[in-house]
Amino acid sequence: MMTIGKYSLNEYLRLIEWFHGSPSPGMLVGGIMVDAAIKRLNTTRLYDAICETSSCLPDAIQLLTPCTIGNGWLHMADLGRFALALYEKDSGRGIRVFLDPEKTEEWPEVNIWHLKLRPKKEQSLEKLTDQILKAGIKLLGFQNVEVLPAFLARRAKGEIAVCPACGEAYPKNHGPVCRGCAHASPYVQKKIDMRSRKITGHRISRSEKTSLMNENQG
Amino acid sequence: MMTIGKYSLNEYLRLIEWFHGSPSPGMLVGGIMVDAAIKRLNTTRLYDAICETSSCLPDAIQLLTPCTIGNGWLHMADLGRFALALYEKDSGRGIRVFLDPEKTEEWPEVNIWHLKLRPKKEQSLEKLTDQILKAGIKLLGFQNVEVLPAFLARRAKGEIAVCPACGEAYPKNHGPVCRGCAHASPYVQKKIDMRSRKITGHRISRSEKTSLMNENQG
Repeated sequence: MMTIGKYSLNEYLRLIEWFHGSPSPGMLVGGIMVDAAIKRLNTTRLYDAICETSSCLPDAIQLLTPCTIGNGWLHMADLGRFALALYEKDSGRGIRVFLDPEKTEEWPEVNIWHLKLRPKKEQSLEKLTDQILKAGIKLLGFQNVEVLPAFLARRAKGEIAVCPACGEAYPKNHGPVCRGCAHASPYVQKKIDMRSRKITGHRISRSEKTSLMNENQG
Repeated sequence: MMTIGKYSLNEYLRLIEWFHGSPSPGMLVGGIMVDAAIKRLNTTRLYDAICETSSCLPDAIQLLTPCTIGNGWLHMADLGRFALALYEKDSGRGIRVFLDPEKTEEWPEVNIWHLKLRPKKEQSLEKLTDQILKAGIKLLGFQNVEVLPAFLARRAKGEIAVCPACGEAYPKNHGPVCRGCAHASPYVQKKIDMRSRKITGHRISRSEKTSLMNENQG
């Protein structure tokens, strides 16, 4: 019986549905890739993962290995390649697995999906799934890799400060204010005036508020 | 009985262990934050998430909402603040939840952990867990937010090309070669010569290989 990581194929398909939200060729071929990477890495040591695409594959890694975004063991390198590497935390040596166009070429449905030769809605999920399961690791290329030293460093936030602008905790080494207040807020700037009121400790007047909002929008 | 998302506290603790790998105050307070955000967003529409830290919180979001890294519904904005936002995909309006230093101040163990006032090994996980569970949403601040238009755009890779350097598929709009070959490889450059051999279609000699390797290391 086919297994993917520690799971039977059906268990893995249910995990995809629960975690990723929908049936996905990327999650299926991704599962086969992660499974193959674990087997080839074949280590008893702790390992990290690098994922080279943000499409689907990170979820296969998170479901099948100990590496997640939130525990810091999964590193995103958004290169747009359908590839991942698992590598020993101490030595940095590991195995890279990639979807190889020279190999997917022999499986028409996989090739059409991989190189997006037809719009998604004109692709047959059923035929594609079938070919992915038949082809399995025949779709994949493998390389021994060694990651750059930056990927071996342990994540450490260092000292924590309270941002004088928003009043929230942030890593002191980011600078005198947090990155959200400095330049990188993902939000339309309405919140700063709400917080400023709080920080300065007095209830600001409507005119002060309007001028603050105008400043923030400028 | 306390619930976190769709789960009982114990079920959630087991999910943490399975997915995140170890008991974690960040995952516990993160679960309470995500649960509170879902309740306050209170929408029947589809929503996305922004996570402002890479520590723990992304995993709570991935376990408790439909948003994951691999399905593109979870966006990382690495600002170093322990905060998240859930927002409607269409309107961009949503709720931001953050851990508020003014509030954690009243819970000594939480405060010590949040502002890292003592090294981790001198903190008591048991007392900290206890205070997090007692305090619950009293630790949190809430803000209505609207995300910037960039966060409303649907992720689309566009046309796919095969990289002339590594031979792998990548989004054509990244440029004439893939980002991995252009500048952003996370690996010590040994693999390019292996692939070059394949791409050029001839078996390269040892001297050619050495010169390639030197180039890549230069």
